[in-house]
Amino acid sequence: MSNANFQALPGFRDFYPDEFAVRAHIVRTWREVARRYGFQEYDGPPLEPLELYTEKSGPEIVQQLYNFTDRGGRDVAMRPEMTPTLARMAAARAGGLRKPIKWFSIPQLFRYERQQRGRLREHFQLNLDIVGEEDPAADAELLAAAIDMLRAFGLTEQDFVARVSDRGLLRALLLHAGVPEDRLILVYNIVDKLEREGREGVGARLRKEAEMGDDAVERTLDVFRHTDFDAVRAAYGDTEGVAPEIERMAQTFGQLRAMGLTDYVRFDLSIVRGLAYYTGIVFELFDVRGELRAICGGGRYDNLLAQVGGVQLPALGFGMGDVVLTELLRDRGLLPETRHTLDWYVIPVTPEQRPQVLALVHRLRDGGASVDYALKHQGVGKQFKNASALGARRTVIIGPEDVAEGVGVVKDMESGQESRVPLAEIGRP
Amino acid sequence: MSNANFQALPGFRDFYPDEFAVRAHIVRTWREVARRYGFQEYDGPPLEPLELYTEKSGPEIVQQLYNFTDRGGRDVAMRPEMTPTLARMAAARAGGLRKPIKWFSIPQLFRYERQQRGRLREHFQLNLDIVGEEDPAADAELLAAAIDMLRAFGLTEQDFVARVSDRGLLRALLLHAGVPEDRLILVYNIVDKLEREGREGVGARLRKEAEMGDDAVERTLDVFRHTDFDAVRAAYGDTEGVAPEIERMAQTFGQLRAMGLTDYVRFDLSIVRGLAYYTGIVFELFDVRGELRAICGGGRYDNLLAQVGGVQLPALGFGMGDVVLTELLRDRGLLPETRHTLDWYVIPVTPEQRPQVLALVHRLRDGGASVDYALKHQGVGKQFKNASALGARRTVIIGPEDVAEGVGVVKDMESGQESRVPLAEIGRP
Repeated sequence: MSNANFQALPGFRDFYPDEFAVRAHIVRTWREVARRYGFQEYDGPPLEPLELYTEKSGPEIVQQLYNFTDRGGRDVAMRPEMTPTLARMAAARAGGLRKPIKWFSIPQLFRYERQQRGRLREHFQLNLDIVGEEDPAADAELLAAAIDMLRAFGLTEQDFVARVSDRGLLRALLLHAGVPEDRLILVYNIVDKLEREGREGVGARLRKEAEMGDDAVERTLDVFRHTDFDAVRAAYGDTEGVAPEIERMAQTFGQLRAMGLTDYVRFDLSIVRGLAYYTGIVFELFDVRGELRAICGGGRYDNLLAQVGGVQLPALGFGMGDVVLTELLRDRGLLPETRHTLDWYVIPVTPEQRPQVLALVHRLRDGGASVDYALKHQGVGKQFKNASALGARRTVIIGPEDVAEGVGVVKDMESGQESRVPLAEIGRP
Repeated sequence: MSNANFQALPGFRDFYPDEFAVRAHIVRTWREVARRYGFQEYDGPPLEPLELYTEKSGPEIVQQLYNFTDRGGRDVAMRPEMTPTLARMAAARAGGLRKPIKWFSIPQLFRYERQQRGRLREHFQLNLDIVGEEDPAADAELLAAAIDMLRAFGLTEQDFVARVSDRGLLRALLLHAGVPEDRLILVYNIVDKLEREGREGVGARLRKEAEMGDDAVERTLDVFRHTDFDAVRAAYGDTEGVAPEIERMAQTFGQLRAMGLTDYVRFDLSIVRGLAYYTGIVFELFDVRGELRAICGGGRYDNLLAQVGGVQLPALGFGMGDVVLTELLRDRGLLPETRHTLDWYVIPVTPEQRPQVLALVHRLRDGGASVDYALKHQGVGKQFKNASALGARRTVIIGPEDVAEGVGVVKDMESGQESRVPLAEIGRP
């Protein structure tokens, strides 16, 4: 009668209990750090009007979306990112919300990526954002939260580093180097490939695609010679237009130093992040071995709320997905064991003790313990096997004579120690 | 530059932090009770092959789905229910999984319902299932878990009741009453309306739609005269074909009695549940005032895994949505306060103390406390206002002279009590 071969769609994951436990560990840790930082959790719909995404990212994004027309004739899309929803929600209540708004969310996001090994079409992504504060302290707070998210999993400066740049500073430096203002976004996208394509490749593209002269190209490439912040400061600290951006960045770094996080941060002007809407600090967290894609990326997007929600509020945030992070934690042996455990497993010797077993099971559960028992009667040996397989810490055996006396035999499954305990006292402190 | 009026799609909810906190309370309570019962959490994709749903529920279900063709030409649907995914996943690993499989999940589900006041197009639904056990003890275990889910929220037998029937028993009684086997499903659907349409209305439909004679209609209606289980047992306990079904139901009720849950359970043959695939116990949980739709519904579906996954495994489960439950809890005053709180709020008197503030904030957060501070410098009075608004239990004030001495003034925000404490000792046990 049936097609008995249903499978999950390609790029979508089934989370069996062992896999769910890993995901739950990640989500729990994210929530815990967000709580320490005073962020509050929100959520929005996994399906939104298509235009919410095209408004922010342009029509090209549709190529990557799960979008369709719903039964009411609306063009809709499964959310590919959370920021537009955040911007929509924050803008809708902007007047009544205390600023800064410190919010986080852990949505499942969807992109129709071309199928590649290990490339998924859904993932869970921590989104943490600060809305309504332009002070560089917010930049430091956000980056510190991203770093502490990873530290909370047991990762250290031996495992990851945050590469930090600033679009405001980069803009000022590029204008100073002679890049025309109307070609800035184009140049961002070209220099973003500096690591991959090298100085010469990027130089050639700057000449050709950005139509820049040799001098401007040289000066542009010179900007990226500096691999630490102090060198940039020494070179451009007094340059008109650039100095205030350097001062702002210095403040952010100073605050991260006060928090003791300097070892996790590396200044790197070549971190541009492709998206057009960043306006200030941008950062990405990478594993130091460079084996994985970025673990986390974010930055300041001061104009997006105006664009999506019609409210001028500065904002910044980051996204951290579960997939690369899980790979890294597995690689470093930092995933917890996911063994099933129980506080109690209760065993009737014959089916006649079932009422006493059920009464005890229910009372223990009511008290908050995790308890199980064999739904179908089995021999005592088989039931002990179940108890072991389910990770029970203690068993209670109740036989016919025990019922008469109102007792059960409590066994500690680790030590093997047994004792007869009145049924009414089992599980009492 | 923009359409600044984006809104959520009709029937979809935004969860601002206060609303998220309510949802988090419900999810947390569900997880807690599932844990006590020894169930493990799993999840599947929110997007599945369309055929997974049409195979189980027939092509009519498509009317209610968010379905579309993806970029790879696949017919897909956003999940309207979890059971097909569960059946698919359990069947795929049926051989390697320890039975009974006790699993739960809390998916967000999607249906394109016609717009009505308060009708949503998404909700979160606890799904709790037992796979691989046909013993009536599994029926009792499942129903007990449903009842305890509500008890864990503070609801009592004054608030809700589980109406319980059994499709096996009903089938035997209807066959005995003279309903032809090939019209059973039709008759289930007609008598399901007994409460709404009354004895005469249902009688007329049985004659017309099911083409039953007067005698059979009378005997069929007689089946539903009995409002308690003992009466049914007295009337049909010796009837061939019916007796084993009554015996099974008696076992289930006996086990619920042993668990102390009798007050929550009412036998009610008119609970049929429309879905064709139920094969045994069926139940629904209602508020006793009858003001709301069912809070929870479920039952045994012993043939579904064969149909969807090609593996013959008995199974039973229930679904409990967040919407009706939240209404009921709100109505009974059982929703918790969702006030934002902080362990600490740290206050520099002038901007010069910011490094000390940041160091303390970061150390306290590293220790697990929730801590906040003003990102932009403000006057001390304004910062105290923030601390109150954010629900801070304690503040630390650090002024210029404090920095010199290495101390801060700790203030208990409830008692108003203040003390000077060395910075290095703040937050230490």
